[in-house]
Amino acid sequence: MSASIRVTIWNEYRQDRDWPEILAVYPEGIHKVIGNALGAQEDIRVRYATLDDAEHGLTQAVLDDTDVLIWWGHIAHGEVSDHMVQRVCDRVTLEGMGVIFLHASHASKPFKKLCGTHSNRLKWREDGARERIWVIEPAHPIARGIPECIVLDQEEMYGEPFDIPAPDELVFLSWFKGGEVFRSGFVLRRGLGKCFYFRPGHESFPTYYNPHIQRVILNGVRYVNARDTLGEMPQVAFGHMETAPEP
Amino acid sequence: MSASIRVTIWNEYRQDRDWPEILAVYPEGIHKVIGNALGAQEDIRVRYATLDDAEHGLTQAVLDDTDVLIWWGHIAHGEVSDHMVQRVCDRVTLEGMGVIFLHASHASKPFKKLCGTHSNRLKWREDGARERIWVIEPAHPIARGIPECIVLDQEEMYGEPFDIPAPDELVFLSWFKGGEVFRSGFVLRRGLGKCFYFRPGHESFPTYYNPHIQRVILNGVRYVNARDTLGEMPQVAFGHMETAPEP
Amino acid sequence: MSASIRVTIWNEYRQDRDWPEILAVYPEGIHKVIGNALGAQEDIRVRYATLDDAEHGLTQAVLDDTDVLIWWGHIAHGEVSDHMVQRVCDRVTLEGMGVIFLHASHASKPFKKLCGTHSNRLKWREDGARERIWVIEPAHPIARGIPECIVLDQEEMYGEPFDIPAPDELVFLSWFKGGEVFRSGFVLRRGLGKCFYFRPGHESFPTYYNPHIQRVILNGVRYVNARDTLGEMPQVAFGHMETAPEP
Amino acid sequence: MSASIRVTIWNEYRQDRDWPEILAVYPEGIHKVIGNALGAQEDIRVRYATLDDAEHGLTQAVLDDTDVLIWWGHIAHGEVSDHMVQRVCDRVTLEGMGVIFLHASHASKPFKKLCGTHSNRLKWREDGARERIWVIEPAHPIARGIPECIVLDQEEMYGEPFDIPAPDELVFLSWFKGGEVFRSGFVLRRGLGKCFYFRPGHESFPTYYNPHIQRVILNGVRYVNARDTLGEMPQVAFGHMETAPEP
Repeated sequence: MSASIRVTIWNEYRQDRDWPEILAVYPEGIHKVIGNALGAQEDIRVRYATLDDAEHGLTQAVLDDTDVLIWWGHIAHGEVSDHMVQRVCDRVTLEGMGVIFLHASHASKPFKKLCGTHSNRLKWREDGARERIWVIEPAHPIARGIPECIVLDQEEMYGEPFDIPAPDELVFLSWFKGGEVFRSGFVLRRGLGKCFYFRPGHESFPTYYNPHIQRVILNGVRYVNARDTLGEMPQVAFGHMETAPEP
Repeated sequence: MSASIRVTIWNEYRQDRDWPEILAVYPEGIHKVIGNALGAQEDIRVRYATLDDAEHGLTQAVLDDTDVLIWWGHIAHGEVSDHMVQRVCDRVTLEGMGVIFLHASHASKPFKKLCGTHSNRLKWREDGARERIWVIEPAHPIARGIPECIVLDQEEMYGEPFDIPAPDELVFLSWFKGGEVFRSGFVLRRGLGKCFYFRPGHESFPTYYNPHIQRVILNGVRYVNARDTLGEMPQVAFGHMETAPEP
Repeated sequence: MSASIRVTIWNEYRQDRDWPEILAVYPEGIHKVIGNALGAQEDIRVRYATLDDAEHGLTQAVLDDTDVLIWWGHIAHGEVSDHMVQRVCDRVTLEGMGVIFLHASHASKPFKKLCGTHSNRLKWREDGARERIWVIEPAHPIARGIPECIVLDQEEMYGEPFDIPAPDELVFLSWFKGGEVFRSGFVLRRGLGKCFYFRPGHESFPTYYNPHIQRVILNGVRYVNARDTLGEMPQVAFGHMETAPEP
Repeated sequence: MSASIRVTIWNEYRQDRDWPEILAVYPEGIHKVIGNALGAQEDIRVRYATLDDAEHGLTQAVLDDTDVLIWWGHIAHGEVSDHMVQRVCDRVTLEGMGVIFLHASHASKPFKKLCGTHSNRLKWREDGARERIWVIEPAHPIARGIPECIVLDQEEMYGEPFDIPAPDELVFLSWFKGGEVFRSGFVLRRGLGKCFYFRPGHESFPTYYNPHIQRVILNGVRYVNARDTLGEMPQVAFGHMETAPEP
């Protein structure tokens, strides 16, 4: 019944392309590490796009052929054109594309737009100390196949308060050795589409090689994908209704 | 990957067994009409249980072999033993069984227990006037394959305020010709399990023969079924933790 | 302990200024009718602003002196400058100003921005038929002092699905004689601020003279006002944390 | 406009009465320490009730005279009669009494009943290590007048997953030195009443003498108190409606 899930992984691709110390961690780019993990699944087909591609790699044709978009951005949020942001968000809310925002993408334009809040107010510290990511909803599909706590020995810290709307589904909470906590994984439903935010993944640490982190992203892709459902969605009429259904 | 969904349909089975005018509408009982519709699906296996069976038909063995329980009750809620109610609710919250409550089951003991509210405060009128059930979340899996509005020419009216907790997912709103509205379809997440309440289905009207109503119930079964997810759920330790994970 | 609530009522003020048939309904403008009702309360101080004022009447000084902003717009949403929209939304999310969006303001730029959805997808019909607004949370402060159902003999119809995020607090549902339903009153929490959307108020009907509608708006003002709370809010540090709280 | 808030503090009162090492911490009982703090406020009137009083001190007359009930229980949950639990929960859901559950009251009968989940599944460890309670919604009235993080040098640990329904309002998250996190403060809306759960307060530590903890409890009392609102609540008709509002 289900065709492949068409995943597009968008990477800002600056630090992991240009900065030697980051290149050392992700020689092929962060997007490729995530894509290699996802692409090994039979039900997933991966495509890549980066900031410096024409139209940031996200032409209307590419988006139309995308069920789930994964977004990783950090130092160049401001270079993403507002036109593209509108295109991405419309594809989510009006057409039901799923989207996964990773790590510093909390401050990306499309995430902020979908949240409706500032979203870029939080605490951070690049101390490379330990993070523990606790599952708080064990029966959530995004938690399949992982332990109750994912331990990352080195990560950047993000601390509350995090300026997001109350999540529709809160799945993960992080503990940081330095003393902070964070809502690290949650789902927002926006129009026809679902957004999953997942916190870990600072560029200077090998987080995306971690098999549990890869599994969460895989679960997220399957969870926010709505291709089958959208194919059978009720036909809805919007706008001016000339006549009332009841006489 | 997915085995069949093991569905148990529980029917109070009093009015449709003993009252001639109801028997005329549902000669085999309400449970059989629902079961025949669901059982036609390859991924679903149906079993029945009724109030007057031993242990109400819900022995521990039956529940252990049930992924989704459907509940229809009306005039004999008080005859359901508290012991059985606890057993059903534990199977939902502690083991992740899905459950669908239909129509007057809003006043059933297990629904009230899972809600945490009184749940039996609402308006009603058996006038057999028209109901329109509007989809408010078109991309929700429970709305697959139905029109944006299901029209039932004859139904009992239920009116707000309905004494439930704010639903985790609100999918349907009903309009009644007499002037009332109602939250007619919603999901509550409770522990490891999901509950779906769906309003229509008064015994004196042929609602469960309606193919759209049947489709909603089918969608509901697939949505609250968590068998695959539960099979890969994180192993969680509860209770006293002798040692801290961090030194 | 509480000082007056500083309310600014923003009106697009085009139809009720320039269209004779609307002028006949609201000779002083919609904002004045609402303002007269609110201003009669001892705890409220009212100020007005309109689209054609300099900076739409919403200078930084005015916003800084506003606890609650009420917004009514309809045919000129596009003329509101993006700069002003950002200023309004920042005042809500970053500084806690409350905001009430009335009727067609569901399609206004600040409402859409705070929602994170398209928000302008719904059904409508200007048939002037009856609307019934049902209270679904009787103990909500926004429902104080009104009947369980407000009946408006003539209103424009809005119908579901309405493309908004799941509300944090859903208070009112509307029934329309023509057959539709609508989520007519709800609260969204966004950053430090609260937004209340309230549906009724088409310009060609005398809705804002209705004492129950006036009471709901008054209740809304008091509910989204956070002046006292903000004055004692925890001091939060955002951004880079040089040192960890735990050694 | 507002009369005093009538607060009843219910304490199991066993450990702090009978165990010398607990008596040393709370010589007058936990309830008196909380009551002394609250009673110093002009808008609050305090009364006490304990498990071993007749009807657990919660006669119908006492409940009818209570706007907010505070509950502290730990080792004797099972001794609370089901009849009294029903009485308390009905007073919350049907009559709008506010209720605050402290610490181990997560496993009390009324909390479990209002949650609709098991609520007693979590991790714990009485190691007396540091807890940090972070505010995640700084503009929430329950966070007034406290720092962004309350530090308790010695507390019992509670760890996720915590088997509660998704809170309607999540206000606090705890960090524990040993490596765990916990949803430490949240509001559930149940019928006409509001419930606030607040985690800290193990009997062997002097937590309730902490002025920030006292302030949170005071804020909680004011937040879940609905006396004024209930006095002006819409009159709602429940049950059989003989005639439809629309002809």
